[in-house]
Amino acid sequence: MMVISIAMLPSFCVSVIYHEASVARAFLSIILISCFIGYLLYKICQYNAQQLRVRDGFLIVTLCWLLSTIMGAVPFVVTGSIPSFTDAFFESASGFSTTGGSILTDIEALPRGILFWRSFTHWIGGMGILIFAIALMPSLGISGQNLAVSEAPGPSLDKVTPKITDTARILYITYFLFTIMETLLLMLGGMNLYDALIHTFGTVGTGGFSSYGDSIAHFNSAYISIVITIFMILCGTNFNLYFFSLKHSVKTFIEDTEFKFYIFTVIASAFSIFIILMHSGLYSSAGDAAIDSSFQVASILTTTGYATADYEQWPAIAQMIILLLMFMGGSSSSTAGGVKIVRIVILLKLIRRGISTRLHPNVIETIKLNGKQMPVDTVSAIANHLFLYIAMIFFGAFIISFENTDLMTCFTSVITCLGNIGPGFGTVGPSENFSALSDLSKWLLSLYMIAGRLEFYTMFVLLMPKFWSSNR
Amino acid sequence: MMVISIAMLPSFCVSVIYHEASVARAFLSIILISCFIGYLLYKICQYNAQQLRVRDGFLIVTLCWLLSTIMGAVPFVVTGSIPSFTDAFFESASGFSTTGGSILTDIEALPRGILFWRSFTHWIGGMGILIFAIALMPSLGISGQNLAVSEAPGPSLDKVTPKITDTARILYITYFLFTIMETLLLMLGGMNLYDALIHTFGTVGTGGFSSYGDSIAHFNSAYISIVITIFMILCGTNFNLYFFSLKHSVKTFIEDTEFKFYIFTVIASAFSIFIILMHSGLYSSAGDAAIDSSFQVASILTTTGYATADYEQWPAIAQMIILLLMFMGGSSSSTAGGVKIVRIVILLKLIRRGISTRLHPNVIETIKLNGKQMPVDTVSAIANHLFLYIAMIFFGAFIISFENTDLMTCFTSVITCLGNIGPGFGTVGPSENFSALSDLSKWLLSLYMIAGRLEFYTMFVLLMPKFWSSNR
Repeated sequence: MMVISIAMLPSFCVSVIYHEASVARAFLSIILISCFIGYLLYKICQYNAQQLRVRDGFLIVTLCWLLSTIMGAVPFVVTGSIPSFTDAFFESASGFSTTGGSILTDIEALPRGILFWRSFTHWIGGMGILIFAIALMPSLGISGQNLAVSEAPGPSLDKVTPKITDTARILYITYFLFTIMETLLLMLGGMNLYDALIHTFGTVGTGGFSSYGDSIAHFNSAYISIVITIFMILCGTNFNLYFFSLKHSVKTFIEDTEFKFYIFTVIASAFSIFIILMHSGLYSSAGDAAIDSSFQVASILTTTGYATADYEQWPAIAQMIILLLMFMGGSSSSTAGGVKIVRIVILLKLIRRGISTRLHPNVIETIKLNGKQMPVDTVSAIANHLFLYIAMIFFGAFIISFENTDLMTCFTSVITCLGNIGPGFGTVGPSENFSALSDLSKWLLSLYMIAGRLEFYTMFVLLMPKFWSSNR
Repeated sequence: MMVISIAMLPSFCVSVIYHEASVARAFLSIILISCFIGYLLYKICQYNAQQLRVRDGFLIVTLCWLLSTIMGAVPFVVTGSIPSFTDAFFESASGFSTTGGSILTDIEALPRGILFWRSFTHWIGGMGILIFAIALMPSLGISGQNLAVSEAPGPSLDKVTPKITDTARILYITYFLFTIMETLLLMLGGMNLYDALIHTFGTVGTGGFSSYGDSIAHFNSAYISIVITIFMILCGTNFNLYFFSLKHSVKTFIEDTEFKFYIFTVIASAFSIFIILMHSGLYSSAGDAAIDSSFQVASILTTTGYATADYEQWPAIAQMIILLLMFMGGSSSSTAGGVKIVRIVILLKLIRRGISTRLHPNVIETIKLNGKQMPVDTVSAIANHLFLYIAMIFFGAFIISFENTDLMTCFTSVITCLGNIGPGFGTVGPSENFSALSDLSKWLLSLYMIAGRLEFYTMFVLLMPKFWSSNR
């Protein structure tokens, strides 16, 4: 609560600068009150911090994200910008989870301080996920599913700490550098500081909130599209690679299977869509088609969700490519969401092995990544993750179908929230938003966004009766 | 070729009875020619039959189904009923694979002998799959993926044979009994022998071809709907259970996890859809709603594909249930297609274990079925099967999207063909058919139907370079 309230300071400043007195007052009271409550809670709880066990980790991580989301929703409700708490919670969940799906129908009508806060949650969320995915994890970031396990061992926590601080520092420097660089480059393209910051937060956190209803299309600038495309791709890359390439050499990138697959996917998809768009006659200029196809591919694959074009107007085959990208997501240990490229790579290897096993049942092939053999446990965890991912999509789509809308909307609204992307197809397409959904659907999708961000095992473990049973 | 040509005799008789001289002549020539070619091939190849190896099994099974499909298409082309070979191949693949999807726009216009042949392929296909799934398989039919392995060992073939003959005989008796019982019951409902046979073939093979464009809705009879519903459910049940319940006791059914899950799915889905339909105001009579919901649930779950109502007119939540059923399919070792209930059960157990492992990483839980521990190999084969299934759906939908139709059609046309169901959603919905698709899509879907029927590993193995390499 203290961290989040401090994080509201910049938004308070923005509202002061833009003379939004009531918004500034609201921010100030929230900051003071929550800082005070946070301090009280800290005083009450600090003596138990030494006795953390494995499963406490799950609870803490989940509660942290839930609490942040609730706190993040307060400014929206207090200032009257989003009167319904359900809507405000959805918007806050979408912000912190860096999803970028919105329930706002008239974005431009909101006070600037509030819009700044809305985008700033992306930036905090992106940073939060970097700690979550990398700094706290001993294994090289296949997923965050072992977080609680790695956090847990009380005694050895001190031993791990220096290493965490070290890694975290480099990650934050990279994250800050990207933020500063993009802000400057966007300002060079003619944006004012405020817009540049808003869209930088949306990009580096791979979030997707904009201060304009028509997203990046508002600027109608090839330069801005290209800058954002590049930074989306940079932030969908495994941040460990920047760290390693600094320590060793740039060859790290070329040697990483996930990175190669990621870049190949971007180029192949963007090129295919470019050809399809030119062929369809929707674009007269090859340059525009190239920029829009690259932008949209990067935006969906890195789960950012910014839009320069309405892909629902594109030919079916281009839509299909976009849909396939929605399932993939960015690289592991990046700010991107989704299934993650590395899991897709391993999925393809598993399928290949499965066929091969039919032919030679007695030959046991191991799954290799970057030339190294993967532990059987990790492979099995990835397989389980994929199954749970699919099961959650079906369950979610089933609940959304109570809306009595088309099945495409049911499925893609769930896929886009679970993958932290933003836009889907149908009534949640890039030119529309989530405002028309019922409260039930909004709550489900809010939880799905947080669950997706936490790679959902952390949350599911809490739902098991075993978790709450005896005091093992 | 000899078997298939002999299988054409009944159709020849039908065309003789209905005085369709040209059709009868066509059948007679095809029978004589292919019998002759088949005999020649038999004479040439029989001396090598002793030297079959593991991988020859894959080739033989796949070639058998491909050859049967091509032969099955010949009568359609020769009689001019379906002039395009692509269309005829699709219709024949749909028949033998017991899918039931059609490219015919005016079914009633076809000669009766040809329609009889079209439905008879379902009956042969259903029987073929019973041998494939049970008689030739030593393990209790989780899937057909080990067929070639079990066929292979030359020396021990004699040892297995008596057991195969034994099991096969009981299976055939069951299959014949169902055929006779349903034919008689349908005739009691006022059908003539010809219609009764056509719809019995479609039901016991869980195929779905009808002699009428509006399928079972044509009869507008509650009695006929109920009879067909019951037989669809019977034929979507594991045929081994009939065998075991005869040998032991009826308790076999209650002790079988797959059967319990299957029946629970039927009842729960039918009841839910019944409530939804009554609530929606689409039905005034509760009886009609109950019959239509049960019929449609049984038809989709058992992958038969008959229709008494257009489920695309139902509320989204009912459509969603139908779509979920499409993914499940019937029981293993039945004539039904799809993923198979037993794999869904194991998938759910895998997901449960995956979550549990997060909480207690050091506890290794085994997957149990019917109280017995499942071998790790089998579990891993099932996981691979599911991954390949999903990958094939995405790949297929990608190819179909070249049609530039809606994404729902792309996905469900592939799902319905791979699962051997029949109708999908969109332009391949229950009130429409596959005739509008391009030749590329029709070929892809034809191969998908056969691949789905053979649990596709058999075919995929042939695509591996390793298969064709050194003479191991």
